[in-house]
Amino acid sequence: MSTVGKTITCKAAVAWEPKTDLKIETIEVAPPKSHEVRIKILYTAVCHTDAYTLSGQDPEGLFPVVLGHEGAGIVESIGEGVTNVAPGDHVIPLYVPQCGECKFCKSPKNESLPEDPSDSGQGTDAGRHVEVFVQRKIVVSLHGLLDLQSTKLPRLTKFACWVVACRRAMGAAINTAKVEKGSTCAVWGLGAVGLAVGLGCEVAGASRIIGIDINPDKFKIAKNFGFTEFVNPKDHEKPIQDVLVELTDGGLDFTFECVGNVHLMRAALEACHKGWGVSTIVGVAGAGQEISTRPFQLVTGRVWKGTAFGGWKSRDSVPKLVDEYLSKKLKLDEFISHNLTLGEINEAFHLMHKGESIRAVLSVAK
Amino acid sequence: MSTVGKTITCKAAVAWEPKTDLKIETIEVAPPKSHEVRIKILYTAVCHTDAYTLSGQDPEGLFPVVLGHEGAGIVESIGEGVTNVAPGDHVIPLYVPQCGECKFCKSPKNESLPEDPSDSGQGTDAGRHVEVFVQRKIVVSLHGLLDLQSTKLPRLTKFACWVVACRRAMGAAINTAKVEKGSTCAVWGLGAVGLAVGLGCEVAGASRIIGIDINPDKFKIAKNFGFTEFVNPKDHEKPIQDVLVELTDGGLDFTFECVGNVHLMRAALEACHKGWGVSTIVGVAGAGQEISTRPFQLVTGRVWKGTAFGGWKSRDSVPKLVDEYLSKKLKLDEFISHNLTLGEINEAFHLMHKGESIRAVLSVAK
Repeated sequence: MSTVGKTITCKAAVAWEPKTDLKIETIEVAPPKSHEVRIKILYTAVCHTDAYTLSGQDPEGLFPVVLGHEGAGIVESIGEGVTNVAPGDHVIPLYVPQCGECKFCKSPKNESLPEDPSDSGQGTDAGRHVEVFVQRKIVVSLHGLLDLQSTKLPRLTKFACWVVACRRAMGAAINTAKVEKGSTCAVWGLGAVGLAVGLGCEVAGASRIIGIDINPDKFKIAKNFGFTEFVNPKDHEKPIQDVLVELTDGGLDFTFECVGNVHLMRAALEACHKGWGVSTIVGVAGAGQEISTRPFQLVTGRVWKGTAFGGWKSRDSVPKLVDEYLSKKLKLDEFISHNLTLGEINEAFHLMHKGESIRAVLSVAK
Repeated sequence: MSTVGKTITCKAAVAWEPKTDLKIETIEVAPPKSHEVRIKILYTAVCHTDAYTLSGQDPEGLFPVVLGHEGAGIVESIGEGVTNVAPGDHVIPLYVPQCGECKFCKSPKNESLPEDPSDSGQGTDAGRHVEVFVQRKIVVSLHGLLDLQSTKLPRLTKFACWVVACRRAMGAAINTAKVEKGSTCAVWGLGAVGLAVGLGCEVAGASRIIGIDINPDKFKIAKNFGFTEFVNPKDHEKPIQDVLVELTDGGLDFTFECVGNVHLMRAALEACHKGWGVSTIVGVAGAGQEISTRPFQLVTGRVWKGTAFGGWKSRDSVPKLVDEYLSKKLKLDEFISHNLTLGEINEAFHLMHKGESIRAVLSVAK
């Protein structure tokens, strides 16, 4: 019996309140409104952004909530005015949409950005730019959807969900910082995002890529992602920026903060070489926290940047990255350390917090 | 009788202690050591950097001191190893040197920078990169000297000293921020530096150049320097960044802080357009003061930069600017609002503090 136009039920991992394990519940999902699409999610992954909302620190995080923004699925039905996808299409919902019509989409200098960042995590409205936490709504805006049939990617794979997150981090190195051949780079935090930044630096031709983490177990993994050397701040009494400035004859050409810690953001800026060093913030800091430094750091030639989506236009870029993956230029398989089911989602969070996983992919349909 | 190799005497405006008027004294100047040059200063100007040291806020400011870093003069004698200038040459001492040999000078991305910024205002050593407060030492490093004979500038003019400061501010717009044709710009502080930034924005083809100052008298002057409109923060109850974001449909493409106030530096960043706005710090903040903002400002695409010398290589750039001045592309005459003598130096400071002068040029030899 067709479900088109009807409210349906599905399983979802619900966070009823902060700092508690998620519970698998049956929830109702309304039919898609005008310019919306309802998707059957088949795979998803958990990431530190989900953990941040779950921690209760995210001022935009409302409870109860269905987390998840790295998903892949099949279009179940479409709302009025949707012409670019049809039921049965295999799609990736994008957490930053691209409408192609607003000033952000039209600017060549700019990655895709939601019109109003306060929309983040607050669901969808027809035709508006919104950040989508996929599992939560399952109904997403047309502009936040990538039709996988427009790519050469074999129809729906479990890698599809990760490509979205990976490109953000790689893009931080390639598009935002514009890492140059022969340059020196340092990356704070060797989780999945930090590893993908390392990969971006390698693709860009950096000669030294220094990984910084207080968990030395990460160093073994990071060797497969372009990192050439490692520094554990716990091994040094001096501030890490001073250690790195000494190690690199005056500082790094490019640095990246992938932890979300404002103190490390400062260290990353101050570890840059005077005159030309560029520091890029990739990590997401806690609500209300601020970065600071002496203006002298900037006046003497360092540049402070950041990125939400790696400087890519969201719907334009994934097909290109898929091509690179298929031609073996882009590592993706290496990021998936665990294959779990939706019922094991709490285990996925625990593995991530213990630093034992890179990415755990959850099969939702099973 | 030749003065070569001998200690000479000259008149100088001495600051005996902070916050007091300068006194014209006769001081002794030692002969130039190896790779140093002794200059007879003929013209100089006073600027807010001098006022900053005179205020006692500059941790590197030692008293008694002879201030002044915008000078022009004639080589009186040269030390051992100096081959590029000879006695009688007309020269501009540069407060940021260019040796052509170190990694800063060799990098195309970088303006000239002293090897060790702690040298600033501390005089000169043979062959080292140092910031030179010209009147203080009168003996400067070879690398901090521009021979005017290599330019087409009529031999020694009173404009020569100002060209050094002017290009710093123009360069902030042209080289550091890379202002684009048709872009929107805002400049905090309409003193000489802010006016020169406005000029830089105009040369780069900006369509809107908004001047921000709490002294409305500045607005009349600023119209001659490319500014198209003005905002007085005192006319608004809202934070200035909110006023500007509304005024410019989402924020500015380029902003410049030319006051040296860390709160305005934050406002200038936050007035930038999400996705691509670039904010450049030109002003010099008080010792130990810090800038801060939410990392979200950078993550959503704004860029925070600064400049000490406008992104120019010091000795390479002045001849080019002189060409532009001579071909009427570069305004310089307009900056000189008062012609005074060294004996009137305290009046020059008072005019500047009252906001009545743009630049007062002092004839030292008279």
